[in-house]
Parts: sequence; C-alpha cells; structure tokens
Amino acid sequence: MSEGFSWSWQIEWQTPYEFHGHAIKRVIADEVSQYQRSMVVEFYRFGKALIIDGKIQSTVQDEFIYHEALVHPLLLSLNNPKRILILGAGEGATAREVLKHKSVEEVVMVDIDKTVIDFAKRHLQEWHQGSFDDPKVKVVLQDAYDYVVNSREKFDAVIMDLTDPIAGGPSQRLYTLEFFQAVKRIINDDGGFVTQSTSPSFSLETFAVIHNTLRSAFRNVSYGVVYVPAFDGLWGFNYASDVIDPAKLSQEEVEDRIRSRLNGRLRFYDGATHVNMFNVPKYLRETIQAVKGISTLANPVSTPA
Amino acid sequence: MSEGFSWSWQIEWQTPYEFHGHAIKRVIADEVSQYQRSMVVEFYRFGKALIIDGKIQSTVQDEFIYHEALVHPLLLSLNNPKRILILGAGEGATAREVLKHKSVEEVVMVDIDKTVIDFAKRHLQEWHQGSFDDPKVKVVLQDAYDYVVNSREKFDAVIMDLTDPIAGGPSQRLYTLEFFQAVKRIINDDGGFVTQSTSPSFSLETFAVIHNTLRSAFRNVSYGVVYVPAFDGLWGFNYASDVIDPAKLSQEEVEDRIRSRLNGRLRFYDGATHVNMFNVPKYLRETIQAVKGISTLANPVSTPA
Amino acid sequence: MSEGFSWSWQIEWQTPYEFHGHAIKRVIADEVSQYQRSMVVEFYRFGKALIIDGKIQSTVQDEFIYHEALVHPLLLSLNNPKRILILGAGEGATAREVLKHKSVEEVVMVDIDKTVIDFAKRHLQEWHQGSFDDPKVKVVLQDAYDYVVNSREKFDAVIMDLTDPIAGGPSQRLYTLEFFQAVKRIINDDGGFVTQSTSPSFSLETFAVIHNTLRSAFRNVSYGVVYVPAFDGLWGFNYASDVIDPAKLSQEEVEDRIRSRLNGRLRFYDGATHVNMFNVPKYLRETIQAVKGISTLANPVSTPA
Amino acid sequence: MSEGFSWSWQIEWQTPYEFHGHAIKRVIADEVSQYQRSMVVEFYRFGKALIIDGKIQSTVQDEFIYHEALVHPLLLSLNNPKRILILGAGEGATAREVLKHKSVEEVVMVDIDKTVIDFAKRHLQEWHQGSFDDPKVKVVLQDAYDYVVNSREKFDAVIMDLTDPIAGGPSQRLYTLEFFQAVKRIINDDGGFVTQSTSPSFSLETFAVIHNTLRSAFRNVSYGVVYVPAFDGLWGFNYASDVIDPAKLSQEEVEDRIRSRLNGRLRFYDGATHVNMFNVPKYLRETIQAVKGISTLANPVSTPA
Repeated sequence: MSEGFSWSWQIEWQTPYEFHGHAIKRVIADEVSQYQRSMVVEFYRFGKALIIDGKIQSTVQDEFIYHEALVHPLLLSLNNPKRILILGAGEGATAREVLKHKSVEEVVMVDIDKTVIDFAKRHLQEWHQGSFDDPKVKVVLQDAYDYVVNSREKFDAVIMDLTDPIAGGPSQRLYTLEFFQAVKRIINDDGGFVTQSTSPSFSLETFAVIHNTLRSAFRNVSYGVVYVPAFDGLWGFNYASDVIDPAKLSQEEVEDRIRSRLNGRLRFYDGATHVNMFNVPKYLRETIQAVKGISTLANPVSTPA
Repeated sequence: MSEGFSWSWQIEWQTPYEFHGHAIKRVIADEVSQYQRSMVVEFYRFGKALIIDGKIQSTVQDEFIYHEALVHPLLLSLNNPKRILILGAGEGATAREVLKHKSVEEVVMVDIDKTVIDFAKRHLQEWHQGSFDDPKVKVVLQDAYDYVVNSREKFDAVIMDLTDPIAGGPSQRLYTLEFFQAVKRIINDDGGFVTQSTSPSFSLETFAVIHNTLRSAFRNVSYGVVYVPAFDGLWGFNYASDVIDPAKLSQEEVEDRIRSRLNGRLRFYDGATHVNMFNVPKYLRETIQAVKGISTLANPVSTPA
Repeated sequence: MSEGFSWSWQIEWQTPYEFHGHAIKRVIADEVSQYQRSMVVEFYRFGKALIIDGKIQSTVQDEFIYHEALVHPLLLSLNNPKRILILGAGEGATAREVLKHKSVEEVVMVDIDKTVIDFAKRHLQEWHQGSFDDPKVKVVLQDAYDYVVNSREKFDAVIMDLTDPIAGGPSQRLYTLEFFQAVKRIINDDGGFVTQSTSPSFSLETFAVIHNTLRSAFRNVSYGVVYVPAFDGLWGFNYASDVIDPAKLSQEEVEDRIRSRLNGRLRFYDGATHVNMFNVPKYLRETIQAVKGISTLANPVSTPA
Repeated sequence: MSEGFSWSWQIEWQTPYEFHGHAIKRVIADEVSQYQRSMVVEFYRFGKALIIDGKIQSTVQDEFIYHEALVHPLLLSLNNPKRILILGAGEGATAREVLKHKSVEEVVMVDIDKTVIDFAKRHLQEWHQGSFDDPKVKVVLQDAYDYVVNSREKFDAVIMDLTDPIAGGPSQRLYTLEFFQAVKRIINDDGGFVTQSTSPSFSLETFAVIHNTLRSAFRNVSYGVVYVPAFDGLWGFNYASDVIDPAKLSQEEVEDRIRSRLNGRLRFYDGATHVNMFNVPKYLRETIQAVKGISTLANPVSTPA
C-alpha cells in the first residue's frame, strides 16, 4: 500500500459529511484583505485556480463551462442585445463572454469590492483576457442591490454572477423576490435576466426556491444544469424574461446564432450542449417541482455557510 | 472556526492529486474474502452503500441512475428483447431493471465469484429486490471471458456491468477488441451490446478508447453520459449494434416505449433524460474524438489502480 | 506520485486546525446506544481499538502506557493499599492493573452506563482480561458524582478514569474543587488519589487548571506526563495525597516495589520510566506554572468538544 | 454537526495508513528549485513553519525542542569545545544553539545546496537569528560525505543535522558504519558526535539500527528521546564518543554547566529535561535492544519515502 501525497492541499467541505481534497502544486498568491483571503494556486488536475476563503471559485481549465452557460443561452435568445448589466465583476470572465456578442455596445459591471477587481487584474489574466480594459466596459464600484434599486437606466440583459446566498452573507438579499422585481424594472420589455443559482448537487432545494421566486416575477423562467469538474458536481442557472425563453431555442437555432452573432470560439456551448443543459434528468425535475417556497427579504433562501 | 467531524470516513482517491471523503454513519457489514473487502455502510448523504476494496460501488440513493442508464436505452431500442446476458451479477440491480421489460423471457447472469452474490443476497435487498430469485433468472458461476468465448447460445442483448479495466485486474481483458468480437458472435443480428465505460470525469481517455474499440467491432456505436452524485462525477456507457442505435430514438419514442413495454416505474430515464444523456457537451465530444487508440489483448486499456 | 489509500478511515480533529487519520483494516463492532456510538476496529498501526463517538479511546498496542501510568505510581507509593475505588469502569484495563497489586483486597468500580460494561465484556477481552469477573471486583451502576458524595465507605486509593471535561458533558463537574474535596472525604488519611488530566499537547491549560485545583484540596500534588502513540501526543496525570507523593519515589524504590509487590509483568512502567514521566521538560513546566485558575462547579474547566 | 474548515491544509503521511493535517493560515513563500519545493507557511497551532517537499521540517513554536536536544547534551558533556562541525546547515538554528556556548571559537557548516541557505537567510530569521553572519561561522558548500572523508582538520564536536536516510535519497549513505568511522577520524580524542536519528514513533527500527551502528564505531553511545509537537511524535538522537557520555551527566551538573558555560536562555533543556530525555520508557528500550542489525554502505538503513 503506497503512501498518499504529503503536500499542501485544498480541502473543501460540501456538507459536514463530505469533503474533497485537491493537491496544490504551487501557491501563486495568497492575500488577506479586510473582507477575505484570496489565493491563486496551481492545481495538478485543474491548473491555475482562484480560491476565496477556502472555496474554489473557478479554475482555468473549466471556468469556460460556467461562464459560457451563464451568458450565451440568454444573449442568443434575445433579438439584439446591446446594453448588458453584470452584477458581480468577479474575475472578468463573464464580461469576456458577453463581449463575444457582436451586438453588444455597452457592458456595466457592478461590484462593491475594488480589491477583488485589482486582484483579478493582477493575477487572473487567463480569465478576464483584458475585458476590464475594453472601451465598451464600465465598472461601477457600488453594492449591486443599491445600484439596481436606484438605477434609472434600462438594459437588454442583466446577468447576476454573485456568490451563493450564504445565510447572513452579503449576497443573500439579492436572491429574493423583491430584488428580482427591482431587476425587472430596469430590463427592457423584450430583455432577459439570468442568475447563477447554486449547485443542484449540494443545495437542490435552494436552487428550486430561486427558480420558484423568479416565476413569481417573470412570465418565462427556464433552468439549465451543467456539470463543472472543479465543483465535483452540477451547477444550475435560471433564465427569466416576459418575452423570450432560451429553453425554446432549437439545436439548429443555437448553431446558427453562434455562427452569425459571435466573435471567437466557444468550447462548451453549442447546439448539442444546449439540448443537454435544458433537458434535466427526471429525478431532478421532479424534486425541483415538488419544492414550493419562494425567497423574500423577510424569509430569504440560503445555502449552508 | 468549528472542528470537523471526528468519525469514521470513507476516503477515496480519484487520482494521486484528489480525494473525496464521506462520513460513515454506521457500518452494517465488513467482510474480507479471498478476493476483496466488502463493506455495507450507511452514509449521511447517500444512505446505504456498497464499498468494495475501499471504492464506493453504488448507493441506495442514486444507484438507479447508473442502472437505468445502463439497461433501458439499449433494451428499448431493440425490437423485442427476450434473452438477455448480463456479465457481472453485481448487486442484482441490473437484472432488476432488465426484468421490468415485459418482453424479457430469460436472463443469464455470469459471475465468477459466488461470495459476491451471497453477500448481495444477504445485505443488498434494496438493490436486487428479489431478482436473484426470479424464475426467469439463471446465475452461471464462471469467468465472463470464458463464458462468452465458449458459449454456443445467442442473446438479444448483452449487458456488461463489470469493474473498471484496472491494470492487471481481472476485468482488463474484457475491454478489448478480441473480447468485443467474441461478444458480437453470441448476439443475434438485430441485437445489441452495452458496457459501462468508466468515468469521463476521471478517465476520459480510457472512455474514448473503449468507444473506439467498439467502433472496430460494431457498425453503430453511441455513447451516453450521466452524472452520478456518489461518484462525484460523470459516468459513461457505450451502446453498440450492427442494426439499432439508441441515440437515434426520439424523446417521444422513448416516452411511448417506456409506457407500453415496461412494468414498474423509472426514476431517472425518460424522454428528456434520454435527450440529455446522448447530447454530450462540446468539450467532451471533441476530446473523445481526438483520442485514436483501441484496446487489444496485446495492448489493453486501463484506468489507474 | 502514488495514490493514497482508498479505504475506511478514522479521522479525528484535535482542534479546528488539525486532524489525524488512521486507516481502518476491519470494523469488528459498530453499535449505537442511547448515549453514544461505540466501535471496535482493527487499525494497521495500532491493532484493535475502541472508538467512542468518533474519538479513539485506546488501542490494544499502547493502552498499557496509559493504564500503567494511571495506576502504578499511586499504588506503589502507598504503604499497603487494600481497598481501591475506580471511577469509570471503562474497558476494565484499569482494574486489571490494580489487581496486579498483591495487597489489593477489594476493587469498587462505579459507572453510570451498563451498556459500556457489557460492550467491553463482549468485545474488549484483551483489555479487561477477565477483571470484571474477579471475585475482588464489585461493579456499582451509579453516577460517579452521586456515589462519591453519598458514600460512607473509605478507600486507600481513588482512581478517576473518566472522559475529558468536555463543556456541558457528563464528566465536567467531576473535575472541580467541590468534587475533589468530596473524594478526599472518602480516602483514608494516608491514602491517595489520581486522575487522568487530559492531554498537555492539545489542552495544556486544562491540564494545568486540574493540577491547580487539586493543589487547593490536597497537600501533595505531582503530575506525570507520558507519550501515547495512538493519541499522537502527550497524556497527563495528577497524583494527590496529604501524606505520600509518587514523584518522590526513587528509581530504585520503584524497581524494588515492582518486584516485591506486583504479580504479573509491566511493559511501560519501571524505574527509568518513573524518572522519565515525573521529570517534565522545562517549557511545559513553565507553562503549567504560569496558569493560575482553578475549576469549581460555578466555573468548571473544559476541553473543546 | 458542523462543517470542517475549508482552507488550504498541509497533509502529511507518516505511513501509508496514517496522515496528519494542519490548516495553513497563510503561505509566506513557495519556491521550487531544481531539487525541491520549499514553503514557508503560517500554521494556526505552530506559527511560522518550514515545509520541504511536503514534509514539515520545523516550526517557530517548537524548533527549540529539537535544536536544544541536538546540541546541548553533547557540548555540555565535553570539557571545552572550541571547534564544531555541523553537517547540514539547515535553517541556521543548530549554529544558533552552538554559538550560545562561550567556549566555541569556530563553527564550520557544510551543506551541498546554496539555495537552501539563501532561502533560510531570506525567510527564516526566527531560526538562524543572524548565525550565518557570525564571524565564528564558516559555510562550506560541499557534499557532507566528501567533506568528512577528505578533511584533514580536527573538531571537538561533529553535529549531524541531516534529513532522514530515505531509501535512495542523498542522506542515506551518511547513516552508515563507514561514514561514522570517517567522522570519528576527524574528532579529537576527547571529542564527541551527535546525529539526529529519525522518529522512534514512526521508524523505531531505523532509530535502533543507527544506534547499533554507532556502537560499532564508538565506545560510548547513548540515546535521548524528546516529544516534538509539530512532528506529532517522538524524535531521537544518538550521542557518541570514546571518552565522554552525556547520559552520565547528573541533573545538577547539567544545571551548573548551563549556568556557567552558556550565553542566552534555553527553553527546553535543563536538568530535569536532561533526566527526562535520557530515561526512555521501558517498552522503547526493550524494542531498541532487540534490534540487531547495523547499517553499512552495502546494506544501508532507510526510512520510508
């Protein structure tokens, strides 16, 4: 019997009863700010990775799955998306995908924490690929909740790329009916909204509640589910609009629109992938359907800390 | 910061650089035979589970995903499957799914190790649900390789439910061109074959080589991929035939045939799930396509031990 | 780089920042009672072991260190110990060591939980070696606190072999000045008391507070420290009396008394070991001396849960 | 049940069946050279620590135990030690302790790897405390084996502070009879030798073989054993000479000589600690005595990789 690998490891608890460990080949950056500990490491399996407060945020080898699934189904189902709002600037990868759409003229990114953006600019070139410096991009340093509630602008699409609604955490109130209604107010009538919606593998009920909540605010709400290797599980998204519905796009329409409306190459999303992610296995659909609650400011949904 | 859970844990290495841990609520059985250590435990997340030599084989809460995906796409694409051969008796769950097909008249299960079957009968009632005692079922205690090579019988479907082709392990020579050709000899002309094909998450190249090898033996070979929570990753299957092709079934055909040809209820597989599992995301398809090798007795494929 | 050992493991947190894992070769018993989960397993390094609620209690390969260090320094420093009280029946190994003293005529073991004793009788033969059935031994099923407070008997030695004073746990009030004073009341004038006192490696301050508290109740209080492999650290004991003091025994006296007063062989304790355990390294002595608090019912000491 | 700490962890295998994990608060340096990966991290329990190739070398909170035990028993048992040879420059902490002896006039440190010394100078100020810059200290960049074999100088004491004799590793041939005889050649007649001798907790037989081998080269060989928290176990040293014997020093002699011959304060070593470390518990002495082999170039001892 051989010894395991004595080394530095990233260990992450999915629940009190489950943890995953990944060997860290090299630590590239480890910075502690007022709010959080941000590490950039190199993994053996996933390459360069961003870890915030001990949780893997994304890795260079599979972040494209998450970001393509977040952005393209919504933007391709819209007619001619020009003005895009991104809540949560993150690593700049969401903006990178948005900027592939030829129709896009303006991207507003709202993030409360300048240090995160600076950290990304310095260490996460593979993610943002210069999108912070694109003349179409404007960064607003403000709390996303306040921005949306006070905004007098209108957008064709709003993309919410925030951390999970951890109980008591800063994102929790953004996964509520009240906030979704505020978002709807600043979306053009034929526009749409998408939000990352936590992991159907580790917090399926939370995922379902976010879906239900959006159904109280928008006419059409569809969900898509993808498998993300670095998360060791599924990840889910909800797409909402009063007019369009990404789930209704056919495999051929997706192929056509990728060809005609995008610059650059996609690695995850195409016609077959679209069909995959909007046809969720039966047992998940049934569980999601059985969950009835919605999330409000008075009684917000959460995932375990 | 709170302490983790001091307890007995199942820890499993996916690679030298990755391990997953699951807390064991209770150990129900722990038996060491000449060949292996077999445990039945209760997990917090997955309930009752079978562990062989430290590797989770299946859990009561999600084994249906694996077994439905293994059995139904093939059998529903056949015209009138009557005689079924299962290589690897396992926990009896594959036979359980096969027996749901009204057309099935005879199921032959081949397994070299009587102690595994006895262990399953005693401890895994939730898996086999009595299928070992069904009058249609015949268990043959023989090496699956020898059985297939020497058999003079013919089957409508052959279902291979064996352990991964670990280097030097007993299953390795069963994932080779020579063996697949021997299997083809005992399948009726309009029959089909399916084999579990390892995890596209942890051994994608192995998965692709098995696919390629089958393409050297059969005219139609399709693969399907599912996410299995207890494996913390994707699992893959290859379906092969000279005549039929499960991937060609439409969502509606799957729904119709489930209704008309099956007894009992399915939890995973339906029309939408079928579409999901045969539309594999782009990056996986591209990698699979780029792998060129095939597996032969002289140069057999393997997964890490 | 080789994979680690996919297997069942005992994982134990010493603090929120430290855990130790030991591979479990075989699970011999796993029983859940009203109060706790009791496992008997076989480890690779330590052989058979008892685990209560996920914490290693003792292992067949090194329990002799703990039990010899607990019992013999006290009993050998007494003149002619005849009546011995053991608080906490445990695995029967403390009684086993006590019964090696030829002078001993009666051993009273007090334990609240009959299921623990039954479990030990069935599974821990290597520990008790029949001591539960010795005609000199009497088992009393009662809370140790109540027994001591209400007892009208007198003993030559009281040996406290209880679990650590976990906050809110059943043992906490037994590590207090009030209880130690109650114990003193039932010890003969020239008798003595010993208590296991938690790990100086993982809870040095707790150890020191127990020491200080005993100094408020007895004239002579000495501590001894031993290294216990299965605990991956040091373990400590306090010996208290108004008359005798084990620390004052010379190496030769220990050798002589072992020869003349004991039946059976010791594996850990002899003259040199005595000198070792009562000469504690400087940095530990200095830290222990710097701790000032004592433990009372109103403000009892505790170790982390 | 609370979740464990999702964070970066140092995980270290003591054997294939045992691992220990320590949470890493912050990574201070992580450098990969031609030979090894060197990390300086901050632990919660042990503070700043040096990790080489995934193995904890020493920590700021307990390195004094190892280094004081290595240096002082030998030097205090010598009459008037002036010229000291240190094999393995390490973190500079061994030289720091040697320089506390007022009699010392010259310290030669031999190390093959300049990058280690540079790394220590930059990151391990708490360890070396300037000893690399002391005018009495001379650093020789050479393989320790070659240096000793070819040296024409004589020393009062040789202190061997090398990594364990890992099979096939660079240190293995330095734990052999041939090398010990070469060392003896460069020690003055009334001088002495000490070597760290691996962990009696995790490689007791290796420890015993090193002891036996020294007994074939020197008249007096004594061993001392200490508990080092960051190693979660015992650590052992062998002291060898034809004339003196540290084990024969009395508690009072140690106290006297520390007072009269040392500058600076010791935290671990004093009279009582001396008695502790040279009085090893019975079961360890008996096992060490039962081991018979010696280590030669043809058949060198080793610890697991």
